[in-house]
Amino acid sequence: MKITLSHGAGGAQTQKLIGEFLKLIKNRQVEGGIGLDDLDDCGTIPYQGGQIVFTTDGHTVDPLFFPGGDIGRLSVAGTVNDLTMMGSKAVALSLALVIEEGLEAEILERVFQSINSTCQEAGVAIIAGDTKVVERGAVDKLIITTAGVGLTERVVRDNGVQPGDKIIISGDIGNHGVALLSQREGYDFQTTLESDVAPLNKMLEPVWQLRVHAAKDPTRGGIAMVLNEMAEKSGVNIILAEEKIPLHPEVKGACEMLGLDPFTLANEGKVVMAVHPEDAEEVLKILQQHPYGKKAVICGEALVVEEKKSPKVLVQTDFGKRVVRPPLGEIVPRIC
Amino acid sequence: MKITLSHGAGGAQTQKLIGEFLKLIKNRQVEGGIGLDDLDDCGTIPYQGGQIVFTTDGHTVDPLFFPGGDIGRLSVAGTVNDLTMMGSKAVALSLALVIEEGLEAEILERVFQSINSTCQEAGVAIIAGDTKVVERGAVDKLIITTAGVGLTERVVRDNGVQPGDKIIISGDIGNHGVALLSQREGYDFQTTLESDVAPLNKMLEPVWQLRVHAAKDPTRGGIAMVLNEMAEKSGVNIILAEEKIPLHPEVKGACEMLGLDPFTLANEGKVVMAVHPEDAEEVLKILQQHPYGKKAVICGEALVVEEKKSPKVLVQTDFGKRVVRPPLGEIVPRIC
Repeated sequence: MKITLSHGAGGAQTQKLIGEFLKLIKNRQVEGGIGLDDLDDCGTIPYQGGQIVFTTDGHTVDPLFFPGGDIGRLSVAGTVNDLTMMGSKAVALSLALVIEEGLEAEILERVFQSINSTCQEAGVAIIAGDTKVVERGAVDKLIITTAGVGLTERVVRDNGVQPGDKIIISGDIGNHGVALLSQREGYDFQTTLESDVAPLNKMLEPVWQLRVHAAKDPTRGGIAMVLNEMAEKSGVNIILAEEKIPLHPEVKGACEMLGLDPFTLANEGKVVMAVHPEDAEEVLKILQQHPYGKKAVICGEALVVEEKKSPKVLVQTDFGKRVVRPPLGEIVPRIC
Repeated sequence: MKITLSHGAGGAQTQKLIGEFLKLIKNRQVEGGIGLDDLDDCGTIPYQGGQIVFTTDGHTVDPLFFPGGDIGRLSVAGTVNDLTMMGSKAVALSLALVIEEGLEAEILERVFQSINSTCQEAGVAIIAGDTKVVERGAVDKLIITTAGVGLTERVVRDNGVQPGDKIIISGDIGNHGVALLSQREGYDFQTTLESDVAPLNKMLEPVWQLRVHAAKDPTRGGIAMVLNEMAEKSGVNIILAEEKIPLHPEVKGACEMLGLDPFTLANEGKVVMAVHPEDAEEVLKILQQHPYGKKAVICGEALVVEEKKSPKVLVQTDFGKRVVRPPLGEIVPRIC
C-alpha cells in the first residue's frame, strides 16, 4: 500500500495507517507528563515543580507568501500558539530548514525577516537551528519545522470542558483557508481577504488566571475539528448558535461559491475556549481589547451528554439543529 | 543569487549566506541561557534552578536504509547525542515527518520500528509529533525532523578545553561516511563496513561526574570540524597523534582509493572529549566497558596557543606535523 494525499477514503486510510505506525512507539510519555496518547497540542515534562511544555510542527505551504503572511510567520505563530493553548508561556523555539537547491536567496531573506518580526512580536527566542540544502526536486522550495518550549505551573488541557461552560471564539473563522485558496491555481476567485496568521500568546497571557477549562487553536480541520476533540475528550455536548459565529462576508461568499464548510476551514490566529460561565464575560473583554480578538464572541455552551449517547457538537440554525462532524482526511491540502 | 548545494566556492557561499540570514533573528537566546551566537550543539533555558537543554535536527538521507542503520535510528540517535554532548540527560523528543505521497507504507512501518527500538535503547520518549503528506515530487520520499529536550544542573560546553586536557575519541572514525558512500551510485566499491549510528547517552552517563571540560559528536565535517570548533572557542591548540586515531582498515582503504580525508568523514555514534588529565584514564575505562566505546583512545592533548597566534589543530604524523583544517562546504552531501 502506498501513502496518499487524496481526499476521501484514500486520505482517511493513510491517516489511520500513520496512526497505527505511531502506536509502534512504546515510550510515549515522560513519567507524570502529557504524552502521545493524550493527543493534545503539546507534550509536557514535569521538572523542578513546574511543567516544560514541548511541541513541534512541520510547515509546507504553497505559495510561500500569501495575503496576510508567509511561511516564516506561519512557522513561528503556529508553534507559539500550540504552546499557548496549554496555558504556558512560550519562551524558545528551534528552527529546522530544508531548502531546495536553486531557491532564490532573496526569498530566504524575506522569510527570515518575517521569522524575526514574528518572534519579536511574540517575545520568543530562536535558540537552536539546523539547515539542510537538498538536491533540486528533493523538496518543494522550502520546508520549515519548528519546535518550541513553554513553561507553566498549571497546564490547560483540551479535555477539561465542563457542562455549563461558555464557548468563546476569538474572531472570524476560515480567513486563512480562504486567503490561501484564492492563491491556488484552479480556484479562480478574487478576494481582498487576508490570512489571520498571528501569535496569540500576548493576547491570552491575562486569561490564564481565570477559569479557562480548555483551549485549542482551530488550524487544520477548523473549529469543526477542535470542538469535536474538546467535546469527545471532555465527555460533553457542545452547542453553538450559528448566527453568533463570526464570519467575514468574503469567507461566506467563497464557501457558498465553492461548496465549502467554513467550520472546517483552517485558521492560524484564532482560539476556541471553554470558560467557566462566571468568568466568560471577563475573558471576552480581555480578548476584545486586543487587536487579534476584537471580534471575539461567546457563541455556545457545553451541556451534559444524554445517558447512553456519545458526546457531539451541534449547531443551532434558523432551520433547527445540525450535527457538526470532524472533517475526514485533508480538506484543503498543504495550507498550514 | 540562488542557494546551491555544490562543493567548493558555491557551497561555502551558500553557507555564509544562510549565516547572514540567521543574523536577521534578533531574539537569539533566553536570558541567562545558551543561544544561537554560542553555536553549540544545543540551546538552553534556565528554569527553577536547572537547565532545559533544547535542540533540533532535520534528517534527509539517501538511501533511507543503509548498512548499520536507517533514517529512523539516525533521527533519534542524532538528537539524543546532541543533548548528551551538553552533559544533559535526554528525556523527550518530538518527531515531525514530511512524507512524499506514494511512499510505500511498509517503508514507513520499518522506519517507525527503528525509531521505537532506538528510543527504547536510549530511554527517551516521543511526546510530540506532526505528520504532513505532500505531493509527489515535493520531497524526496521522507524527511524526519527531530527536536529534543534534556535536563541538567551542569551544562558541559564545547568551549571549555584547557591546556593540558587529554583528547579522547570513543572509537573508529569515518565508518558512517564510508558506509553511506558505498551505497551511492557512482561510488563503485564493496565494503562490509557498517554505520556507527547509535545513541551515546547511556555510555556517557557516568562520565559527567568527572572533569569533562568539553564534548562534541563529530557528525557532518567529522573530527576535523569538531576539534577545530573546540580549539577555536576554547582558545587552545589541539595536537593529535595520528597513529593513535582508531581507523577501520576499510575506511583507510576507501579514503586512499577515493582521495578522502577520514578526519572530515561523518560519524553518528562517536564522541570527542577534552578531559582533565587526572580523570582521562577513568573516562577511558568507562567508555571501553561499553560496546560503543570498546576502541576508545586518548589520542591527543590541548596546549597553550603561542603568543599572537590563532588556535589550531595539528596532527603529528611519521613525516612531521600537519594542520587539520575544518572542511569547507559539504563533504559528502546528505549523509546525515
